[in-house]
Amino acid sequence: MQFTIQSIATVHNNRQMIQDDRWGEIISTIELADHIHEASLKGIEDFSHLEIIFYFDKVTDDQIQYKARHPRNNQDYPEVGIFAQRGKNRPNKLGSTTVALLEVKPRALIVQGLDAIDGTPILDIKPVMKEFLPKKDVKQPAWSVDLMKAYWG
Amino acid sequence: MQFTIQSIATVHNNRQMIQDDRWGEIISTIELADHIHEASLKGIEDFSHLEIIFYFDKVTDDQIQYKARHPRNNQDYPEVGIFAQRGKNRPNKLGSTTVALLEVKPRALIVQGLDAIDGTPILDIKPVMKEFLPKKDVKQPAWSVDLMKAYWG
Repeated sequence: MQFTIQSIATVHNNRQMIQDDRWGEIISTIELADHIHEASLKGIEDFSHLEIIFYFDKVTDDQIQYKARHPRNNQDYPEVGIFAQRGKNRPNKLGSTTVALLEVKPRALIVQGLDAIDGTPILDIKPVMKEFLPKKDVKQPAWSVDLMKAYWG
Repeated sequence: MQFTIQSIATVHNNRQMIQDDRWGEIISTIELADHIHEASLKGIEDFSHLEIIFYFDKVTDDQIQYKARHPRNNQDYPEVGIFAQRGKNRPNKLGSTTVALLEVKPRALIVQGLDAIDGTPILDIKPVMKEFLPKKDVKQPAWSVDLMKAYWG
């Protein structure tokens, strides 16, 4: 089944190049697309965090991984399936990240910690509610802890 | 900007009708689509939780809300923008939920707490890593706490 989706906003920040690490301090402006009404943001200032779903538009179709690979092509990490990692070269090219909401403007949001480069199309914005966080302890393999060491900065 | 996306898996569970509440005990099978290699799940058993991005395919285009509305049409809740709530009638019809991973089969995952009905197309599966959870306390308005009271059951 195929579906058509459309960007509802665009990222503006000072990161022009794809980069693996140090995303924590990046401040981004998420600017609504023309066809989205500013009322869509009403009341969003009452949330501290947002979940941003975006589209890795710089990934070409031939880069998409459908099987398994070493995360970051690092042979020290085990070979794991594309759905057992969060890398960008994935089917449907969807990214999803929780950010801190710093400021709300009439047609834009200022957020911290969005790991998307300047110009990235945004597909959805959802408020983070505690009730949607994991209900029990999160377990994850050692390679993923190592990979994330410098991710936020 | 428009993009085409394709389901990579399908939900199977015993919930046939759209329902607001009591999703916590629902056990779902996520079955890979034919064009997705089973190696895409390699190593996923080392994660306790997954983030599932899915498509609200039962929502018709005329149901999509681009402005603001009372969540669940409940007048006791404030009118808030569609991006300040998680309701399904949203631009791009994307859902995103963290589930507990119970079991891995060669071409399927058994998960608990997926709030999607039987037959829902799945667009992405991402492992939950602690480093992607909110870094500070989550703040949210009182209406959202009230709305979530019976959501998981």
